[in-house]
Amino acid sequence: MKIGVFDSGVGGLTVLKALREELPSVDFFYLGDTARVPYGGKSKETIQRYSLECAEFLLSFGIELLVVACNTASAYALELLRESLTIPVIGVVQPGVEQALKVSKTKRIGVIGTRGTVQSAVYQNLLKEQGAQPVAKACPLFVPLVEEGIINGKIAQSVVEYYLEELKGKVDTLILACTHYPLLKETIREYMGDVEIVDSAQAVAQEVKKLAKNEGNGTLRLFFTDNSPNLSHLIKLILGEEQSYEIIPVLCKL
Amino acid sequence: MKIGVFDSGVGGLTVLKALREELPSVDFFYLGDTARVPYGGKSKETIQRYSLECAEFLLSFGIELLVVACNTASAYALELLRESLTIPVIGVVQPGVEQALKVSKTKRIGVIGTRGTVQSAVYQNLLKEQGAQPVAKACPLFVPLVEEGIINGKIAQSVVEYYLEELKGKVDTLILACTHYPLLKETIREYMGDVEIVDSAQAVAQEVKKLAKNEGNGTLRLFFTDNSPNLSHLIKLILGEEQSYEIIPVLCKL
Repeated sequence: MKIGVFDSGVGGLTVLKALREELPSVDFFYLGDTARVPYGGKSKETIQRYSLECAEFLLSFGIELLVVACNTASAYALELLRESLTIPVIGVVQPGVEQALKVSKTKRIGVIGTRGTVQSAVYQNLLKEQGAQPVAKACPLFVPLVEEGIINGKIAQSVVEYYLEELKGKVDTLILACTHYPLLKETIREYMGDVEIVDSAQAVAQEVKKLAKNEGNGTLRLFFTDNSPNLSHLIKLILGEEQSYEIIPVLCKL
Repeated sequence: MKIGVFDSGVGGLTVLKALREELPSVDFFYLGDTARVPYGGKSKETIQRYSLECAEFLLSFGIELLVVACNTASAYALELLRESLTIPVIGVVQPGVEQALKVSKTKRIGVIGTRGTVQSAVYQNLLKEQGAQPVAKACPLFVPLVEEGIINGKIAQSVVEYYLEELKGKVDTLILACTHYPLLKETIREYMGDVEIVDSAQAVAQEVKKLAKNEGNGTLRLFFTDNSPNLSHLIKLILGEEQSYEIIPVLCKL
């Protein structure tokens, strides 16, 4: 079976890693849109257009299922992708919400993500429909912190406190609604104390496992739209090993 | 006279502001590539392609001079733009370097910018050619900090210290080689103590003034490739007043 995964950049590799652990025989095609990263601060229209372009590229390999690993793209473009494509499309929002509802006792659930994800209110609406009380907070500095490799120490702690102060003590569960955030998990846990932390990568992998067959040759092809200077370093940091990758430039017209 | 200015996003508005103060009668066309911002962590090839696309868009308005307000684009694409276009092209690097050489007594000059700008070594090479001793440092978190509006206080101070510790006491002049950094100037000055800070926006405006005629209707048209959620806020923050703007989507093919 062939599965496509796309993300705005390298963060979605956390989702890919979880998927490969659950479905080691599947053939995976990953596209990271590093030429246009980040999506988090861009408009709905732009994110929808970029998402369709990424999906079309992966469809050319004959994928039978598409995973939208990017939270911002899942929040803004999932419905559009489902309408436009004939294969199943799985986002990261629904699985994360279900996991959070399962582990939360008080149903007071925190959601942290990019500005785009939080402003879309997709997480908050789904949680409210299920009777939970969401508290959402955009943390725009977390992605650049992780990409800088600053995941613990004084600066990481100050930034975590800056954003999470208003959630502390008010939620029993926290959804990491951005693929970069799991790398800050320990610093977040230290500050937040006794909360359940939901990392959607794991939740998505479980959801995909229900729909997919663990068949194929277990191959992996990685594509990126830009050969950014720290790309191979970040691939190794997230996947735990070096992987070769191909560059597919985006051709644009203004 | 018609002058075009482009930048990866809103930061170049600091250059535009300085230009309009020096040349109030000129008709300005500004393009901010907010759909693909930031350029700072992307590859040379991608930045060159984006820069050519931005230049072509502005040329369609009949501009007679082009200002590359983005330091990363100036570092990677200025030569290519000069070869490709028939109008004068002014970048931010040369004017910043000249200003620094003028004010520095010890000729030990610090350069801070994005990863792309620093890795290109364009500033360092120019300074060395003139007999100065440059010390360069990439500060990738400064742009997201400014875009978050965190320009003073505990977090800004920690991040400034984190990056500038190795420059403190070792340079008498510091070039802010990124259009976003002037907004952090006070926090940088507090930490660095007695150094001359060179803001290239001012230096570029002086350079352009030598080549341009202050003629025209003093109009301004602002274009952006994405209508990002905090765009109008940032325009007001930098230009000091509200300005209407037009959105020119980038059409891409992978």
